[in-house]
Amino acid sequence: MLLVYSGGMDSTVLLYKEADNIKLVVTFDYASKHNAIEYEHAVRNTKRLGIEHIKIDLDFMDAYFKSDLLKSGGAVPDGHYEQESMKSTVVPFRNGIMLSIAAGLAESNDLSTVLIANHAGDHAIYPDCRQSFISPMQEAISQGTYAKIKLLSPFMGMSKRDIAITGRDLGVNWQDTWSCYKGGKIHCGRCGTCQERKEALAGFDSTEYEY
Amino acid sequence: MLLVYSGGMDSTVLLYKEADNIKLVVTFDYASKHNAIEYEHAVRNTKRLGIEHIKIDLDFMDAYFKSDLLKSGGAVPDGHYEQESMKSTVVPFRNGIMLSIAAGLAESNDLSTVLIANHAGDHAIYPDCRQSFISPMQEAISQGTYAKIKLLSPFMGMSKRDIAITGRDLGVNWQDTWSCYKGGKIHCGRCGTCQERKEALAGFDSTEYEY
Repeated sequence: MLLVYSGGMDSTVLLYKEADNIKLVVTFDYASKHNAIEYEHAVRNTKRLGIEHIKIDLDFMDAYFKSDLLKSGGAVPDGHYEQESMKSTVVPFRNGIMLSIAAGLAESNDLSTVLIANHAGDHAIYPDCRQSFISPMQEAISQGTYAKIKLLSPFMGMSKRDIAITGRDLGVNWQDTWSCYKGGKIHCGRCGTCQERKEALAGFDSTEYEY
Repeated sequence: MLLVYSGGMDSTVLLYKEADNIKLVVTFDYASKHNAIEYEHAVRNTKRLGIEHIKIDLDFMDAYFKSDLLKSGGAVPDGHYEQESMKSTVVPFRNGIMLSIAAGLAESNDLSTVLIANHAGDHAIYPDCRQSFISPMQEAISQGTYAKIKLLSPFMGMSKRDIAITGRDLGVNWQDTWSCYKGGKIHCGRCGTCQERKEALAGFDSTEYEY
């Protein structure tokens, strides 16, 4: 299996859950404000687990794509993750791009399966996190590869709270995961992803927040 | 409309055919042996037509993907395009990757449609050129973007000969298109794509071949 791994909560939980089956991990740096610090957290986990981990830079997205998540974009808004204002942080077709590259990587490395950790909470503002996107993408990847690569999205129906509880039971160290879209030294505590993180980890949150 | 444009025969014909509707052209350099010379030819056409043209480098494919088409791969085999030996030139899920990036670019630039020039002759060895791939990819791109971006593949049912005749009637200068996978100074005349090119242009071929 190949895991698309950001270093966030969800994909870290999936990394630990499928650690015995994952042979290759790929992190994409698409020049978001928080990719660099997210990656620092990601490597702590793959090193601990001894799993091969590559990073792929997608610099062109900063140059040609429009999103406030990117270094070239405006400020990341405060507010709740599901609010209309958070739409400015959508990176157009980001999951399609990451999954397509992951499919080619899997075929090049004789791996039969690509894993992604999108979940129900993502659906509100991210069209490329929904089942209506994942289903045809699964078919496109299967039909477009010789090995009929499988795309699995095991957290699709789960809430972020369910994922957090799964991670707690697996012994995930939340300090080795990163969520904040602002990409400061510690989690801001105010942006949409920080608020979502706080709600999910309530009761067992070891994160240091600015607010 | 946004065109995925290599500088080869097929996408050049599509460029001229839809020149009035194409607002942005993107060429991908995935570090194949022939990308650089192909791009030199591509810009001649977009300059002549006055259409905005960007190039996106996908260096990671040379580093992590396996294909004899890439600089990091083995020699490009001689032989007919549809032969088994040509499978070594397949770049895993290349069209999926290019179309996904094109979809994100289209959404970022308020363009509603992505064009690709794959055709019937590609189907034998390229799984990501077939209708069985294009159909779910159309659905994935539509569902995964806010603007419900359309993917059009107008040459899907056409032979390369039909495309060549269309291009001749549009006044395409074949010397401003590139096919040869070996990426030398002139077309080798022996590799699969050169043989396919000769067959398609028979009777009006202005290409200079080594053999």
